[in-house]
Amino acid sequence: MTTATKPTDKPPRGPSRSAGGMVPNALGRLIPSEVNGREAVPFKGVGKHEPDGRKQAPPIRSCRDYPADGDKRVDSLEEAFRRCGLSDGMVISSHHHLRDGDRVGMMALEAAARLGVKDVMWFPSASFPCQAPVIDLMEAGVVHHIEGSLNGPLGDYCSRGKMRGLGVLRSHGGRWQAIQDGEVKIDVAVIAAPSADPFGNCDGSHGPSACGSLGFALADSIYAEHVIVVTDNLVPFPCIPWQIQGNNVDYVVEVESIGDPEKIVSGTTRITRSPERLMIARNVARLLKETGIMREGFSFQAGAGGIALAFVDYLAELMREAGVKARFVRGGSTRYLVELLEEGLTDYILDGQTFDLDGVRSIGSDPRHVATSPFTSYNFHGKGNFASMVDAVVLGATEVDVHFNANVNTHSDGRLLHGIGGWQNCLASGCSILAVPSFRDRIPVIKDEVTTVTGPGELIDVVATERGIAINPRRQDLLDAVRGSDLPIRPIEEIQREVEELCGGKPRKARVTDVPVAVIKWVDGTVIDTVYQVAE
Amino acid sequence: MTTATKPTDKPPRGPSRSAGGMVPNALGRLIPSEVNGREAVPFKGVGKHEPDGRKQAPPIRSCRDYPADGDKRVDSLEEAFRRCGLSDGMVISSHHHLRDGDRVGMMALEAAARLGVKDVMWFPSASFPCQAPVIDLMEAGVVHHIEGSLNGPLGDYCSRGKMRGLGVLRSHGGRWQAIQDGEVKIDVAVIAAPSADPFGNCDGSHGPSACGSLGFALADSIYAEHVIVVTDNLVPFPCIPWQIQGNNVDYVVEVESIGDPEKIVSGTTRITRSPERLMIARNVARLLKETGIMREGFSFQAGAGGIALAFVDYLAELMREAGVKARFVRGGSTRYLVELLEEGLTDYILDGQTFDLDGVRSIGSDPRHVATSPFTSYNFHGKGNFASMVDAVVLGATEVDVHFNANVNTHSDGRLLHGIGGWQNCLASGCSILAVPSFRDRIPVIKDEVTTVTGPGELIDVVATERGIAINPRRQDLLDAVRGSDLPIRPIEEIQREVEELCGGKPRKARVTDVPVAVIKWVDGTVIDTVYQVAE
Repeated sequence: MTTATKPTDKPPRGPSRSAGGMVPNALGRLIPSEVNGREAVPFKGVGKHEPDGRKQAPPIRSCRDYPADGDKRVDSLEEAFRRCGLSDGMVISSHHHLRDGDRVGMMALEAAARLGVKDVMWFPSASFPCQAPVIDLMEAGVVHHIEGSLNGPLGDYCSRGKMRGLGVLRSHGGRWQAIQDGEVKIDVAVIAAPSADPFGNCDGSHGPSACGSLGFALADSIYAEHVIVVTDNLVPFPCIPWQIQGNNVDYVVEVESIGDPEKIVSGTTRITRSPERLMIARNVARLLKETGIMREGFSFQAGAGGIALAFVDYLAELMREAGVKARFVRGGSTRYLVELLEEGLTDYILDGQTFDLDGVRSIGSDPRHVATSPFTSYNFHGKGNFASMVDAVVLGATEVDVHFNANVNTHSDGRLLHGIGGWQNCLASGCSILAVPSFRDRIPVIKDEVTTVTGPGELIDVVATERGIAINPRRQDLLDAVRGSDLPIRPIEEIQREVEELCGGKPRKARVTDVPVAVIKWVDGTVIDTVYQVAE
Repeated sequence: MTTATKPTDKPPRGPSRSAGGMVPNALGRLIPSEVNGREAVPFKGVGKHEPDGRKQAPPIRSCRDYPADGDKRVDSLEEAFRRCGLSDGMVISSHHHLRDGDRVGMMALEAAARLGVKDVMWFPSASFPCQAPVIDLMEAGVVHHIEGSLNGPLGDYCSRGKMRGLGVLRSHGGRWQAIQDGEVKIDVAVIAAPSADPFGNCDGSHGPSACGSLGFALADSIYAEHVIVVTDNLVPFPCIPWQIQGNNVDYVVEVESIGDPEKIVSGTTRITRSPERLMIARNVARLLKETGIMREGFSFQAGAGGIALAFVDYLAELMREAGVKARFVRGGSTRYLVELLEEGLTDYILDGQTFDLDGVRSIGSDPRHVATSPFTSYNFHGKGNFASMVDAVVLGATEVDVHFNANVNTHSDGRLLHGIGGWQNCLASGCSILAVPSFRDRIPVIKDEVTTVTGPGELIDVVATERGIAINPRRQDLLDAVRGSDLPIRPIEEIQREVEELCGGKPRKARVTDVPVAVIKWVDGTVIDTVYQVAE
């Protein structure tokens, strides 16, 4: 099924896990009026939702109830959970800086299982294939449902309609917003720490399981009712830097290992070797130069995918040639960004997560490589954030449509297989560029309508493929800037037609039922789209 | 007047600025039952008050209402105040890291005056003599009263009963607690920033008005309804390090100069030359050695007074001799602490404020010199804080009594002349030592009863004078540790008698009325004592 991206007068869909039926949002996508027992606010348009109220207020604690010598260690996660009063239906959060090497998320949920607790809501900043065993805990009733990015097997489980609650996917900034605004009240935050002291100060950039930044766990540490730190590298107080402050921590648990270093960070990140993808990367770098975005003191962000890495490498070349230096680049950091910093091509790396060993080394030792958090970078319910101050961002997508709407969550078969990450937040950049191949597995990437809208077309400025670069007609300034350029600038419909001819027609529509299994939140907490159960 | 330090059945005092009369607290000191329209909680004993409720929750804001390019500059403080909706009776806060060189506190209050605003409550983290003109603004009705440390002329003004509200003195940690717990709701925080970017990120350690840490302003930036940054050193985004985060800031105002560098930090801090005071310092250093407190990995804190500096110098000598290294030392930092760090005699300086140029240089360049805040160091309503993890602290006092109660606020004539600073918070240390001369201006420092109780005797372990060292009888462990030592350990009463003979008798009691003019808050927000109007 698909829904129109313009307002529609189709009737709301039938009964589902959401008690109140379906309502259309400003993009015309149908969304559940209630999500996991809470009224949902439909997406109203970019910058249209006006929040009210006050931030989540955690309980006032007192030093009288904590050890004067600062030693908050307890023997086990079970003991820590017991002292936190963990009980049925509570929310347990975790972070994903250890990525597919993480052991602490499962440790926590398994400890909850051993305590006989039921119907926990697991609230990770993202889930990874290593956490597939949560499926067993969902089947056993320990975990009720997951709110958080659902990568791989957990996304598939959700897509098949197996989860008892609706999946709720939020961007990194949206997760901060939801915690800060009290939409999700975390009962117990469990924080995996590559280094920690007995007081609970934590650092991610040193230790055998070093992962770099711990920014995704910061909101949890500030707003949760109870906070448990789990570490395999206890250091004497003070643990410096304290990315997480012990003053927010209740208990510290020492374990053998918090993660598998091989899977926490790549030994090294690699540039794509595909000639088509290299061409996309080169053209995007040239676009930045020819539009004048690449100028003294500019800024950009690119991810750790093969095209993005190649883009950074090409752009560095152009910067060197032009004698231009960036004021800052935003991570996820890789060796390519670290090289920029060390070569003096940027003053700073502002870094939310660290993807390879060079990134970890740099953030742990170079004061110009600064750890950020979703609060500084992405929270839409703050007094501004960094994302809108970035001149250009290069992102990926699973699908994009002729209205420039884009999808990063579902595949064209409708299956939910990816999280949002910082993707939505980055669209606030001065120039947001989707660098994508024009087809994958002979399925066109440019569609009439995306299966799922993760980001609205008005925020996507450029779609760059190996068959040409489409600039959003809303960005007349960019179209003017490239006039006379020999870059392959083409209307998106023209690229679409060419690819459809090549692939033998338009892609098939997703085979899904009308039963919602998850919702996609926008950066302001409203619901931008719904993911439906796949038809088996 | 004096009050007993034990419970008393004296009737409450007559009517005063506090509507509800006077009630005794757990030390038997009479305190107003209501302070500036808010019910006061009498001090209940150390660690006895159990807080409830939730932290202050600032309003949820949205990026939609802030400039996407991150430029929050407005032309003037008046304009910023106007946009904040400043109106009569509101609370304006400021910080004192610029000390007696600060220009921003007065700038803010004068801007409020120009806007015609009345009855503002000024809530500085401390006031200094350079802010004496606030007296005119109080006379003119612009400022209603001050809550915050009242040093010098403002303390004197308060002592003479001229202020319309009661003065409320809080420690650095108590100020955080009061803001965090919602006891004081800041309407507009005005933050003087030695460096800031247009987004509002601030750093104190660089720029012509560099002062080091900005920790005292951190609570204001997090919890205030509106936050204005005032800087004389605008740098391009990002201002690194961001001690104050722009994501909490509404407006940025550029001015010619935020302070007088000569008065912000001392060019250099100096050790006392008085032979008696040097003797006190030497004996305190020896005490730490002989009690075994000075051991590998220990920690200590000392202020920037002449005795404290000499103590650090003597202790460094003993550490070198013994081959002992501290894990951390707590600032206020001075060149003496910086030398320890650079020599490798401590792993870290954890620093709340920076007293001299060496301190500023070090905190701005050495990653082992770490800026702290009252949250990490002193907030009693957190999940522990650093103060109780410090092995020994060396402090001063204006008076101490035979029950080891101590006073840092009033002189023996009853006048309120000093703030609390971190003094109360530091008493949580493993060994709190008051290093004081036994008399000043021929007035004995050791009294039967202190004029004002700033800290209860049960938390004060040692009183070290040039006539001997008195160890609190509650600390049998320390008494045992020094048995056999040739340190001049003596009962406090014996030192008291000797000094009284020398000075011609006991000190005169303070000549004060029964009209309260200020209260002294304990670290948990309860009221430990009252300051009375002086008899003229």
